[in-house]
Amino acid sequence: MKNKLPKQKTNFSEWYTQIVKKAGLADYGPVKGTMVIKPYGFQLWENIKDSFDLMIKQTGHVNAYFPLFIPKSFLAREAEHVEGFAKECAIVTHTRLKNDQKNGVIVDPDSKLEEEIIVRPTSETVIWSMYKKWIQSYRDLPILINQWANVVRWEMKTRLFLRTSEFLWQEGHTAHETKEEAKKETLDILELYRQLAEDYLAVPVLTGEKTDSEKFAGAEKTYCIEAMMGDKRALQAGTSHNLGQNFAKAFDVKFQTKDNKEEFVWATSWGVSTRLIGAIILTHGDDKGLRLPPKIAPVQMVIIPISKNDEDEKAIKLYLDSTIKSLKMEGVRIHVDWTNNTPGYKFNEWEMKGVPLRMEVGPRDIENDKVVLVRRDLGEKLFLSKIDILSIVPELLEKIQNNLFTQAKEFRDVNTYSVTSYVEFCSIMKAGGFVRCGWDGSAKTELKIKEETKATIRCIPFDEKPEGKQCVLSGKPAKHEVIFAKAY
Amino acid sequence: MKNKLPKQKTNFSEWYTQIVKKAGLADYGPVKGTMVIKPYGFQLWENIKDSFDLMIKQTGHVNAYFPLFIPKSFLAREAEHVEGFAKECAIVTHTRLKNDQKNGVIVDPDSKLEEEIIVRPTSETVIWSMYKKWIQSYRDLPILINQWANVVRWEMKTRLFLRTSEFLWQEGHTAHETKEEAKKETLDILELYRQLAEDYLAVPVLTGEKTDSEKFAGAEKTYCIEAMMGDKRALQAGTSHNLGQNFAKAFDVKFQTKDNKEEFVWATSWGVSTRLIGAIILTHGDDKGLRLPPKIAPVQMVIIPISKNDEDEKAIKLYLDSTIKSLKMEGVRIHVDWTNNTPGYKFNEWEMKGVPLRMEVGPRDIENDKVVLVRRDLGEKLFLSKIDILSIVPELLEKIQNNLFTQAKEFRDVNTYSVTSYVEFCSIMKAGGFVRCGWDGSAKTELKIKEETKATIRCIPFDEKPEGKQCVLSGKPAKHEVIFAKAY
Repeated sequence: MKNKLPKQKTNFSEWYTQIVKKAGLADYGPVKGTMVIKPYGFQLWENIKDSFDLMIKQTGHVNAYFPLFIPKSFLAREAEHVEGFAKECAIVTHTRLKNDQKNGVIVDPDSKLEEEIIVRPTSETVIWSMYKKWIQSYRDLPILINQWANVVRWEMKTRLFLRTSEFLWQEGHTAHETKEEAKKETLDILELYRQLAEDYLAVPVLTGEKTDSEKFAGAEKTYCIEAMMGDKRALQAGTSHNLGQNFAKAFDVKFQTKDNKEEFVWATSWGVSTRLIGAIILTHGDDKGLRLPPKIAPVQMVIIPISKNDEDEKAIKLYLDSTIKSLKMEGVRIHVDWTNNTPGYKFNEWEMKGVPLRMEVGPRDIENDKVVLVRRDLGEKLFLSKIDILSIVPELLEKIQNNLFTQAKEFRDVNTYSVTSYVEFCSIMKAGGFVRCGWDGSAKTELKIKEETKATIRCIPFDEKPEGKQCVLSGKPAKHEVIFAKAY
Repeated sequence: MKNKLPKQKTNFSEWYTQIVKKAGLADYGPVKGTMVIKPYGFQLWENIKDSFDLMIKQTGHVNAYFPLFIPKSFLAREAEHVEGFAKECAIVTHTRLKNDQKNGVIVDPDSKLEEEIIVRPTSETVIWSMYKKWIQSYRDLPILINQWANVVRWEMKTRLFLRTSEFLWQEGHTAHETKEEAKKETLDILELYRQLAEDYLAVPVLTGEKTDSEKFAGAEKTYCIEAMMGDKRALQAGTSHNLGQNFAKAFDVKFQTKDNKEEFVWATSWGVSTRLIGAIILTHGDDKGLRLPPKIAPVQMVIIPISKNDEDEKAIKLYLDSTIKSLKMEGVRIHVDWTNNTPGYKFNEWEMKGVPLRMEVGPRDIENDKVVLVRRDLGEKLFLSKIDILSIVPELLEKIQNNLFTQAKEFRDVNTYSVTSYVEFCSIMKAGGFVRCGWDGSAKTELKIKEETKATIRCIPFDEKPEGKQCVLSGKPAKHEVIFAKAY
């Protein structure tokens, strides 16, 4: 395994691609744009998934599963939805292969479908076609359903975890009696996304609303969490949509209210995806590889035995046996690397994989009743008495978790600028960073800035203070204070 | 909710369809043959999944994720595989929709793919195309990978959980150094399947080998677990395949052995699917609805408060509060039904949903410091002192788990016949049941029996004793003792 990464500063994009492969997270699949998530990457996803699954279950949501396939006609029902969203997709037209004497295995032309089928790019339409059957009265509401699923959006420019044709995600689809309830749900979920990002992935995020031009096609309002990556670009890490009555109207889903009237149902939808793994890499990675937040790291501590022979190995096993057992009992995820590689090789490999803590133990440590611990986040070495391990390891994992968050937050804050002049704005967009400034609220201004600088409005932050500010481009009174950045 | 089911004896097939819908397990999706797994059904699947996921992780397997899409050419590589298996499938030919003035949203003909893409019916081919990249030397082996995924096989005759175009499953795909290791893996997994079926789903299974005509296309040997359903037909509940070197050869996956030779890798694959939910229904269901084994039941005990007014309700809450907390602490999954429906309605509903235990509590019970418990498996009523609940509920759940298994096993054993004459064989196949008899080992015999009776060889059981037996059709010396039955 060639462990050498390109430097982040020299070639951030190539650094990212290499780290994904060298840390054993993912690989490209045979069909263009598809991704194979390797066991180490998938364990990371499972940890993220389990964390969030618990959060939504604790707030009354349940999981279900809806079909992969959607009739083409469904996508056309919500006009904005198909216009802005569902164009690049995988379309199933036939259902049988056959042997052809000349050409081998071919598609049987007789198996052509009457109506083409779309592989779901998202499931609003198929789910609302079912809600139409399930919802009659207010007694059937709210419906708080989530699904963990694969979705497909045909992509030309692909990047592992960030943009692939198929990806894994969760998509929540809820139905409510009132507008207010739907709004509350949208915002409650956004708060869960914030917690997931900040408290588990150690990725600090801005929360706010999308502008009309950036919102989900079919939504009344889209809220988002936005994070700053190591190259100072923004990454949208999760979105929560207030769909109003749009999909209920498209699929004619009415309910009988408590006072015996008929009304369209109110809806939300929300999702986070395997893109979060991209966010973790791009936020915490360094020139040695990944750095994983302990709470979601597949391995929290790797133990590297420093042994010259079988005798050493035996002694180390004996020396650590009860300590490892106790730590595992406390829920610490430990891996002992007994492979034949050199210690140096192992250090590099596990640094690449971002394991938060490394323990080194050799014959001399045994003599002194000590071990060596190395923090992945700081590179710091600690010499510990063996007796202290049990208390110090969990403590250190918590410190690392917090430190990764703090480092990322400081980095973001240092690279976020309040500006008033457009010249300044442009020079920051060139150098990289977030800009917080006034915006006149016009789509034209937004588009012009995008064309000239490639920056988009990442969000209208909840804590905006537009009063007295001016639009950075037009100089008109600011309707909103917004966050601009170039984005993934 | 109309709770009336057709009687099992009168119309088993309709009974099944109704139970799936009335218990809230699943529904048909809009595209023909697709299935929506509703929250209650999905929780059941999650419990099955979690149980098996733990088993495979404890035996050294890891999860990963491979793409949904497979290039058409891949399916043709393993000749038997495409011939016997991958014919009826969903084929993606285009990747873009567009607006057409006349016809609305249409498939953009310009987006036609050069090579058609197949939605995976199973993942051997795409996975072995990746193993080709990942395996160089014996040091890379074994690979013990599993994935939880959706797969698609185009089906004309569909039945919820038993046969749908898309279904959820796990598929394990392992790679080994030696033939022996691959064989051991195949059998080890079969044993885990047996444990899952018998110890968790309370579904007794026969274990054995498939005949050549029934084995997986591309496998050297297929092993299976086979269960008897309530209508005495067989259901294949899981299969484990020893693939030999077939896929390694098709995808040219060689490795350097310890003594520096080059050899093709040895492979296995194995899967169980949401079909297991069908097996549970068809094994344990009765005229009142589902009966769920406690270990995997989403709700293990439902509490029905018998209250006439708010005061009663308050008193019941107070009376049960600490008991419910304690039971939940012990891991008992409890639901209290506070809806406004009548107690009778609730009894029917939760019986339909198969909840193993029902607790009834009303004002008179509070006076006497008692509760009423009702077992779903036997309909038996128990009058308990409140103080005994904590010890008796977990005990009862275990008893119900065991009793469901015993009932199903007795049913199977009573309906399994050893026969020697073909006349007898045919009359049993007409009436229903498993037949254990000699078979001369010829595919011709197998086919003739199938044509005449619709019965197939479900397996060659591991405990066969062919010695001295004769083939039930040809009268020739038996090569194997086998289990015949009509199957789902």
